[in-house]
Amino acid sequence: MIKIYGDIASGNCLKVKWTADALRIPYQWIAIDVLAGDTHTPDYVSRFPFAQVPGLELADGRCLAQSNALIRYLARDTPWLPADPFQQAQIDQWLFWEQYSHEPYIAVCRFVMRYLGKHANERDPQKVERGERALQTMERHLSQRAYFAADTFTIADIALLAYTRVAHEGGFDLSPHAALRAWITRCETHLHNQGVTL
Amino acid sequence: MIKIYGDIASGNCLKVKWTADALRIPYQWIAIDVLAGDTHTPDYVSRFPFAQVPGLELADGRCLAQSNALIRYLARDTPWLPADPFQQAQIDQWLFWEQYSHEPYIAVCRFVMRYLGKHANERDPQKVERGERALQTMERHLSQRAYFAADTFTIADIALLAYTRVAHEGGFDLSPHAALRAWITRCETHLHNQGVTL
Repeated sequence: MIKIYGDIASGNCLKVKWTADALRIPYQWIAIDVLAGDTHTPDYVSRFPFAQVPGLELADGRCLAQSNALIRYLARDTPWLPADPFQQAQIDQWLFWEQYSHEPYIAVCRFVMRYLGKHANERDPQKVERGERALQTMERHLSQRAYFAADTFTIADIALLAYTRVAHEGGFDLSPHAALRAWITRCETHLHNQGVTL
Repeated sequence: MIKIYGDIASGNCLKVKWTADALRIPYQWIAIDVLAGDTHTPDYVSRFPFAQVPGLELADGRCLAQSNALIRYLARDTPWLPADPFQQAQIDQWLFWEQYSHEPYIAVCRFVMRYLGKHANERDPQKVERGERALQTMERHLSQRAYFAADTFTIADIALLAYTRVAHEGGFDLSPHAALRAWITRCETHLHNQGVTL
């Protein structure tokens, strides 16, 4: 059985958990407390040299890291990652955009408020501005389609859902973004119907 | 023929150019001047809503963005992206790590010095520290193997080479990193042998 090393409070880890749950992939969850330093123990770093969560350990002991690489690996040969190369590339562009232009602002602002206990007005103004811009990019895209990279739900939606649905915990207001809010509900319903507990 | 929209000074764009050159994929290069605002014209944004370089336009007009998604697409079914799912996931983890933990520090410090004309001591200290950490992670990994994600050169090496080989332009000193310097030379030789002009 595979092992998922994760912190249940981390959206990056939830991406992997939701994917495994929905695709009925059996796994053992190994709880890692990032704030307590669990990602920097010699044992953890020997498996995952980036010293980050989530981590995936296969039954034979081989290890992989980086949330979006993990969901791509777990969802291979399923409808969540269609086989067509162009469709895969459309998914990939959103996965990379999420890690470069979304997570560093939306997730980091949430971390600062929820885990470091800061107020919204103590957030880095540049991160706030770039987070707002990311939400606007998503709203524009979703105003013309139901999901990010295909006509149906894919791992691009999993990757973007994780931190967008809790963006308010980082001080972001989703109320001006009607298409984005509708997409969140659509994704949550889809995951719920796949047996995922959010 | 495909079109590559790129700025020749951008490492992210060079990844795509080098991949197409080495794999003998014919293309038309469309020069985009980021500093002059070319990525924000209505025409460009209609193709590439992220308003970034590089961009790839297929012969039928369909467009894709995000450098690492583009090299993954161009290198499919070649030795630079082996078919084995675990090997692909190993490549993917380095592609995502590059965009999250390397490019935002190594490339951004270079941009600040080379394009904004700042001195090394005017760089953001947090970006410098994280850039140094990225170089250390690479050095540790390369001290035990020749390439990042396989026994041979893959797109993980292309992605990491682009900004690492010019890290000194961002004030980073590669002289303490012997394995990293040897890997740069190894990659440059490999690309040269494939007919790529660096």
